[in-house]
Amino acid sequence: MFISEMTQKLLAAKKEKGLTFADLEKILGRDEVWIASVFYRQASASEEEAKLLVEALGLETNDVEELTEYPAKGLGPVVPTDPLIYRFYEIMQVYGMPIKAVIHEKFGDGIMSAIDFTLNIEKEEDPKGDRVRVIMSGKFLPYKKW
Amino acid sequence: MFISEMTQKLLAAKKEKGLTFADLEKILGRDEVWIASVFYRQASASEEEAKLLVEALGLETNDVEELTEYPAKGLGPVVPTDPLIYRFYEIMQVYGMPIKAVIHEKFGDGIMSAIDFTLNIEKEEDPKGDRVRVIMSGKFLPYKKW
Amino acid sequence: MFISEMTQKLLAAKKEKGLTFADLEKILGRDEVWIASVFYRQASASEEEAKLLVEALGLETNDVEELTEYPAKGLGPVVPTDPLIYRFYEIMQVYGMPIKAVIHEKFGDGIMSAIDFTLNIEKEEDPKGDRVRVIMSGKFLPYKKW
Amino acid sequence: MFISEMTQKLLAAKKEKGLTFADLEKILGRDEVWIASVFYRQASASEEEAKLLVEALGLETNDVEELTEYPAKGLGPVVPTDPLIYRFYEIMQVYGMPIKAVIHEKFGDGIMSAIDFTLNIEKEEDPKGDRVRVIMSGKFLPYKKW
Amino acid sequence: MFISEMTQKLLAAKKEKGLTFADLEKILGRDEVWIASVFYRQASASEEEAKLLVEALGLETNDVEELTEYPAKGLGPVVPTDPLIYRFYEIMQVYGMPIKAVIHEKFGDGIMSAIDFTLNIEKEEDPKGDRVRVIMSGKFLPYKKW
Amino acid sequence: MFISEMTQKLLAAKKEKGLTFADLEKILGRDEVWIASVFYRQASASEEEAKLLVEALGLETNDVEELTEYPAKGLGPVVPTDPLIYRFYEIMQVYGMPIKAVIHEKFGDGIMSAIDFTLNIEKEEDPKGDRVRVIMSGKFLPYKKW
Amino acid sequence: MFISEMTQKLLAAKKEKGLTFADLEKILGRDEVWIASVFYRQASASEEEAKLLVEALGLETNDVEELTEYPAKGLGPVVPTDPLIYRFYEIMQVYGMPIKAVIHEKFGDGIMSAIDFTLNIEKEEDPKGDRVRVIMSGKFLPYKKW
Amino acid sequence: MFISEMTQKLLAAKKEKGLTFADLEKILGRDEVWIASVFYRQASASEEEAKLLVEALGLETNDVEELTEYPAKGLGPVVPTDPLIYRFYEIMQVYGMPIKAVIHEKFGDGIMSAIDFTLNIEKEEDPKGDRVRVIMSGKFLPYKKW
Amino acid sequence: MFISEMTQKLLAAKKEKGLTFADLEKILGRDEVWIASVFYRQASASEEEAKLLVEALGLETNDVEELTEYPAKGLGPVVPTDPLIYRFYEIMQVYGMPIKAVIHEKFGDGIMSAIDFTLNIEKEEDPKGDRVRVIMSGKFLPYKKW
Amino acid sequence: MFISEMTQKLLAAKKEKGLTFADLEKILGRDEVWIASVFYRQASASEEEAKLLVEALGLETNDVEELTEYPAKGLGPVVPTDPLIYRFYEIMQVYGMPIKAVIHEKFGDGIMSAIDFTLNIEKEEDPKGDRVRVIMSGKFLPYKKW
Repeated sequence: MFISEMTQKLLAAKKEKGLTFADLEKILGRDEVWIASVFYRQASASEEEAKLLVEALGLETNDVEELTEYPAKGLGPVVPTDPLIYRFYEIMQVYGMPIKAVIHEKFGDGIMSAIDFTLNIEKEEDPKGDRVRVIMSGKFLPYKKW
Repeated sequence: MFISEMTQKLLAAKKEKGLTFADLEKILGRDEVWIASVFYRQASASEEEAKLLVEALGLETNDVEELTEYPAKGLGPVVPTDPLIYRFYEIMQVYGMPIKAVIHEKFGDGIMSAIDFTLNIEKEEDPKGDRVRVIMSGKFLPYKKW
Repeated sequence: MFISEMTQKLLAAKKEKGLTFADLEKILGRDEVWIASVFYRQASASEEEAKLLVEALGLETNDVEELTEYPAKGLGPVVPTDPLIYRFYEIMQVYGMPIKAVIHEKFGDGIMSAIDFTLNIEKEEDPKGDRVRVIMSGKFLPYKKW
Repeated sequence: MFISEMTQKLLAAKKEKGLTFADLEKILGRDEVWIASVFYRQASASEEEAKLLVEALGLETNDVEELTEYPAKGLGPVVPTDPLIYRFYEIMQVYGMPIKAVIHEKFGDGIMSAIDFTLNIEKEEDPKGDRVRVIMSGKFLPYKKW
Repeated sequence: MFISEMTQKLLAAKKEKGLTFADLEKILGRDEVWIASVFYRQASASEEEAKLLVEALGLETNDVEELTEYPAKGLGPVVPTDPLIYRFYEIMQVYGMPIKAVIHEKFGDGIMSAIDFTLNIEKEEDPKGDRVRVIMSGKFLPYKKW
Repeated sequence: MFISEMTQKLLAAKKEKGLTFADLEKILGRDEVWIASVFYRQASASEEEAKLLVEALGLETNDVEELTEYPAKGLGPVVPTDPLIYRFYEIMQVYGMPIKAVIHEKFGDGIMSAIDFTLNIEKEEDPKGDRVRVIMSGKFLPYKKW
Repeated sequence: MFISEMTQKLLAAKKEKGLTFADLEKILGRDEVWIASVFYRQASASEEEAKLLVEALGLETNDVEELTEYPAKGLGPVVPTDPLIYRFYEIMQVYGMPIKAVIHEKFGDGIMSAIDFTLNIEKEEDPKGDRVRVIMSGKFLPYKKW
Repeated sequence: MFISEMTQKLLAAKKEKGLTFADLEKILGRDEVWIASVFYRQASASEEEAKLLVEALGLETNDVEELTEYPAKGLGPVVPTDPLIYRFYEIMQVYGMPIKAVIHEKFGDGIMSAIDFTLNIEKEEDPKGDRVRVIMSGKFLPYKKW
Repeated sequence: MFISEMTQKLLAAKKEKGLTFADLEKILGRDEVWIASVFYRQASASEEEAKLLVEALGLETNDVEELTEYPAKGLGPVVPTDPLIYRFYEIMQVYGMPIKAVIHEKFGDGIMSAIDFTLNIEKEEDPKGDRVRVIMSGKFLPYKKW
Repeated sequence: MFISEMTQKLLAAKKEKGLTFADLEKILGRDEVWIASVFYRQASASEEEAKLLVEALGLETNDVEELTEYPAKGLGPVVPTDPLIYRFYEIMQVYGMPIKAVIHEKFGDGIMSAIDFTLNIEKEEDPKGDRVRVIMSGKFLPYKKW
């Protein structure tokens, strides 16, 4: 998996400052997952967000610009091998058709947007073992007819 | 995409009976997404659940057995082409590394289970366009050291 | 390339009736490309549209139902080999990054929707050889931040 | 996605000069999409066009030569992961066969050229959300018989 | 390699009649390679050509129609395993860049059309072993600028 | 597409000297396509040919050795994305089986050699647009039985 | 792995007759491996060979014709999964470059023909475990220059 | 094809010393193909063999160690494009099933080992063209039952 | 995943008889995993074993023969999508290099045979959740030098 | 196969110190396979484990940090070419379905965890040739219903 120089720089600075993504959430007023997306160059920050981030991490001012650019997105390899990421691929393999069937039944023909989209991660404490809770919310986009 | 004969039979019967997955949720006492997974032969029902389902759909008793079997799971083609399912693949491509970073920060090294796992789909009404809400909950499994 | 039985039935009936997609455009009040998408089971018709189509083609009433279903979409093979379809793949290969750069410059970070989307095909007469004109119009979807 | 050094140099210079592709359109008398294709080394400029571009961007004269060369074209990875570019791939997956059917009906057996070809991008203002309008025009090439 | 029923029917009839593609060349007034392309459903015949072919092969009149249709073209598997066909793939692998360099030097930026294209196969008698001579002639298509 | 350092050096020297492959054909007494194959490290020159080439291009004597080595051949990526090279791949996809059928009919079971093989490129002037003429000549190799 | 009907028929007849490939070697005067290639439709028999084979196996006379046809060759799947066949793929993966180096050193630039080629399999008795001996003999084909 | 630095160093030293693999065979008392495998880092030498090799090639003593390591083996790309190596892949494609059938008939269920394995290359002089003779000898490993 | 008719027949008979693989282990005197391999046509039974199996399952005598044949082995799809089987693929992805390092350290250069190989599955009862215990035992095969 | 700089550093230090993984097992109190996983950056050490390792290998203190990070896991290439690792892939290809059948019979629907998982490698001395014994133990995870 290719990790860009900027990503490495951001991660190293965050480590040195001892900051978590949750800490940055408070500073930027943006969700920790979205901020992590900026780190991995999958989302572009506004000028103001980039300045706040650069300042919090003690980076140079001329890094602001790169963070506001529109990146070419995606991991690249067709099937991910990292086990944590693969599980999301497997969920799509196993539950993809059932999800499709239920969404169509509830909404008609269309899709859940991956652009007008938010994703939150929560820790559900559980005596039998804590759980990861992933909440996705995407606008339903009905297929246009013409 | 290959759809098994049993899946076609189940879908046809559900249509004829005019039942939704939400209706079946009430009859079986199982979530609609899980029931759809049984339809697509990605999950196996207990004897009792299979009987309730077969009865609700007006199928033959000897269909019970097939529904309790342990299917070979997965869609097959490496990158799905159906737009609704692809969006979940894209989410993993774009947000995979950020999700990994945040889960590791919150939980340490490990993964979200896709087996000890539930998935719910809700309709969020919104004047700017309704939203699809997908809630995944998977047990966190820490990497064992030995 | 797999062509479903229903598609074959629709194409055969259209041929027998001597109808063009342009003729069907007048009957259904929908664009010929969209109607062709229904033929290839990539788009779902409303009950009314399906009835009009079935009637125009002289098919049986119980075909209406299948045309209103939500199909699993896509051609399947990763790189298409048919030369006409491949050219669109090549356009994306050659002009993909330039298109991305110009759209981002005009609209910011986001995409052109392929769902809230229309596509028209026109014949441009030209003494040096007629031209195919393809007009795509998709809603711009800005990346949501959260 | 591999971005050549020359592309990076061109993009950096354009940024520094505060120029848009639309500005360059006025200077070169060529469409902004075509100019972006030169930036991404997918199209070759004439000596004169290269000189105008180099001058506008404040680059060195010996960069002219490279811009007039005939590049090896294409993005490379079979299925693009960037969401904006993927949507064009999806359009081909979903509407490929319908487009083929309508073009054949209007023109006979043949293809739309991707070489004798132009592509324009326009912003359609719309109160429900602006739209991206992509207009492709390619010469129809009938299959030669011999 | 999938061989359609129509292809099998055509090949069987040709065998039964004891005809070669060269014989059919005289009957149809079309090159043997092009006729073989019609056999393998890669090219579409005119009504008249189809009638001549059907008659020559002793097939039924209703086969005429299928031969005039516009087929979805291509072999499908990405790398062909048949040694005769693979050699052409290898020629492209080994001599692809040199051919590109020489064509660009002779013609400028553009391609050799595979649509406005003919292909002939001749037997060159040679005491050291006969040679296969393949002559391709495709219109040069210069890249359009706009 | 990976271009070796030696290839870049050869191409740069050729450009500086203002030589075409056709000029080199006269100097070396070898066809321009074969010489281009040496440039792209797909063919190996004899000591004498390498010396002539190195001299003509004004390179250093110690470059002679590398040009006489036996290179690992091929472009690598399974499906080429460069449009000029892709057209040859498409020709094999569309006309592969017809070519196979005609060669077998003319010669029996066997192949056209891609090793005992020559390839020439000519410019056919044509008022409707010049044509690229590619002439391949390969020894027919009959399958040995044993 | 797809096994054609004719192959199944030949294998079944051979089993019923209790014949080995070695027995057929004596009857046809051809090597057992070549005969097995005819069984798997990778080699074409002459009329006479086909008659001898059909007679030996007690098949019908009209099977002669199919055995003389020129088959589309190859297993198809890119990497074979059968362990016996995979080992030959592995040999090429591990010893491919060393073989290339030694053949070039002994013969110059060129290849070992897989067409003017024979392959024998012998059993080497060995107290530490019998050995499979595979002897390949292919004509060396030097690269032609032109 | 990736060639490691050590391989390049070994090949360069061998060239400078004017040694062939056959010469090294005499010095090391190992077959030339096996020695070439050490060059390409597909086989590991013993301390003594490495010393002999390093001495013969005039390399430094600290290169001994690397040659005794256990390399990660294989060429990598799934289908090789170099024509010499591809022919071995083609042999497996065309003769794989026949070889499997004959080995099973001679030995029962099992495989030819690619580990307890030797491979020799000989030059068969032949007035019609010299032949490459490849002799593989691998221990037959019967499938264990348990 | 393709399941052969014979496999389906065996599984159906086993179900009807109410037998487990463990029951069959007692009847055949072979391990349950090996017997399951015969069911899935990945291993070949001796005449005697096949008779015992056919008898135990109440199948017909002429099924004995098919079970003694040497099957073409393997699942086929390169990356398995069934979660249970994928985990073994993931183990190889994650622990492959570490396993390689430890085996080489303990045994030298060579491999663990997958042919002279046994595999047992045991249930380890554990209050925190039962564990699957997979014990593989394969002969170490040292790389032969020659 | 890409080997990170840290892995190379760890392996070189281990070699220089003359330590085996078994030696490190005694120092760290962790299994040798797990320690090798830390070397190949597939597992993350605790602060304490990292310190012990760094000390044992004579590395610098600031290497501790990198060893405690959560790596992106996996080998990457879809089908491994190294013969030792490939055998594990083959085991999954050949015995995957039988293992699935036996695990389901013993445990019901679910999987063996590859996370709550240990793997040991032992040397079984055997006069007919030593054997590699691989013992995997993974928690059984039953599919959750909801």
